Amino acid sequence: MRLKLSAAELAEYIREVFPEVGDRFEILDLEPGGIRLRMTATAADLRPGGTVSGPAIFMLADCAFYFALLGAIGRVPLAVTTSASIDFMRKPAPGGLIAEARLLKLGRTLAVGDVLLFAGGQPEPIARASFTYSIPRPADPA
Amino acid sequence: MRLKLSAAELAEYIREVFPEVGDRFEILDLEPGGIRLRMTATAADLRPGGTVSGPAIFMLADCAFYFALLGAIGRVPLAVTTSASIDFMRKPAPGGLIAEARLLKLGRTLAVGDVLLFAGGQPEPIARASFTYSIPRPADPA
Amino acid sequence: MRLKLSAAELAEYIREVFPEVGDRFEILDLEPGGIRLRMTATAADLRPGGTVSGPAIFMLADCAFYFALLGAIGRVPLAVTTSASIDFMRKPAPGGLIAEARLLKLGRTLAVGDVLLFAGGQPEPIARASFTYSIPRPADPA
Amino acid sequence: MRLKLSAAELAEYIREVFPEVGDRFEILDLEPGGIRLRMTATAADLRPGGTVSGPAIFMLADCAFYFALLGAIGRVPLAVTTSASIDFMRKPAPGGLIAEARLLKLGRTLAVGDVLLFAGGQPEPIARASFTYSIPRPADPA
Repeated sequence: MRLKLSAAELAEYIREVFPEVGDRFEILDLEPGGIRLRMTATAADLRPGGTVSGPAIFMLADCAFYFALLGAIGRVPLAVTTSASIDFMRKPAPGGLIAEARLLKLGRTLAVGDVLLFAGGQPEPIARASFTYSIPRPADPA
Repeated sequence: MRLKLSAAELAEYIREVFPEVGDRFEILDLEPGGIRLRMTATAADLRPGGTVSGPAIFMLADCAFYFALLGAIGRVPLAVTTSASIDFMRKPAPGGLIAEARLLKLGRTLAVGDVLLFAGGQPEPIARASFTYSIPRPADPA
Repeated sequence: MRLKLSAAELAEYIREVFPEVGDRFEILDLEPGGIRLRMTATAADLRPGGTVSGPAIFMLADCAFYFALLGAIGRVPLAVTTSASIDFMRKPAPGGLIAEARLLKLGRTLAVGDVLLFAGGQPEPIARASFTYSIPRPADPA
Repeated sequence: MRLKLSAAELAEYIREVFPEVGDRFEILDLEPGGIRLRMTATAADLRPGGTVSGPAIFMLADCAFYFALLGAIGRVPLAVTTSASIDFMRKPAPGGLIAEARLLKLGRTLAVGDVLLFAGGQPEPIARASFTYSIPRPADPA
């Protein structure tokens, strides 16, 4: 399995298709089987107690898996999440969040993988997630 | 089981603890076992193709369950999501999103329930989700 | 949506394709959108403390969704589970288990639904589950 | 983190508390953070097409996580699954199944981890799963 997009090409593509949020992400590492991605949290992501909200962590995990998939299959914007599960394990320390996503299956129509999430330099993960994405077939009607 | 907060008290509390996003939610119905909640989508919630992003739908589902829980247990801001799963089933039609959450278990330390999500007046759900929340015990250390 | 199999036809088909376990199931109700299914627990299903094991409850939930799907699409033995999530909420009382499954989406290639599980006449569910099944296309290679 | 049980002690304990199924499992490796476990499939585990049933794979994953947890916390039979999610990715080749479980969080009352499952020597996983277990507190009422 080889990358269809380099990290630089992927970063440019992300800013193009996610103009609202693309600037919050930084690709730390991109390989055929996965990605390391950093996200800065914003005020809207915070919950009472100063912790990052679950939905913000979910968004990072979802984007990390999506970006790993785009690196592997190229510019396929209409790939969409069909299923996800997430477990929140530890309260995130303040600071940037990092996601490590790996592709476990890349089929013709479904991709499956999982993500570990880290915060603020803590060595232990704050959350784990898994995702299934549907990849549109070339011949599929929109 | 009776409500600890009325719909009006809950709406006020939400605006207080979620100043950034509270205005996007409207409580349509609140009962001891569940809630109907409407959310308006914003530009940041959209994905290529004009559809609402998965993380925005996840946020609505998570908030709907959290608000149903707050209605049942009162102002306990530090209840947090421990696990969630979500299936995205149909592309949302443009327009507001509605979540229907129900509490299936309300224990001393864990609450469990599920959520159906609807969009733009479509009769069939666009997504389903389930959540487990951890409720802090009064004596628990922070 | 109409049923492709009656409850009697479905029961016969189940005994045919699941000779090892088919006798443990009793169809209480079958409709186009769902099923009520009873399963008797066996000694192998029990865990320390006399409760039914999680995997046995998972099997019942999976079978209930599969049987509801078969009722809706007919004899398609190669439909397979692709994703599932389950939350165990209460310790099952001794006695038979009942699953109530509903089809939330029946697409060309994926079916999605959820299941509530009850035990021994307790009014509150002991578990909830959700499932995605992949339905083979007629033209798909094996 | 150190093991509370050796692999031999754990194997003996499993046969004691799971007399019906304990003989089907073989511990290949046990470490404080995880386990490798082999299970032989039986006729009752098979689905049409000769593949191992989803519930049998779920049972193996659940047991692998449970045994890894027992290795870490000792003989606590009443630890129970509260949540699980599983994705089935590839059809299992005939032969034994192997589960690789890792503990991602071991808290006072909840343990969280994930499992990769392999079959018949295939290098790529046939399934992934994640689990949350509830650990009874010493003072908890039964």
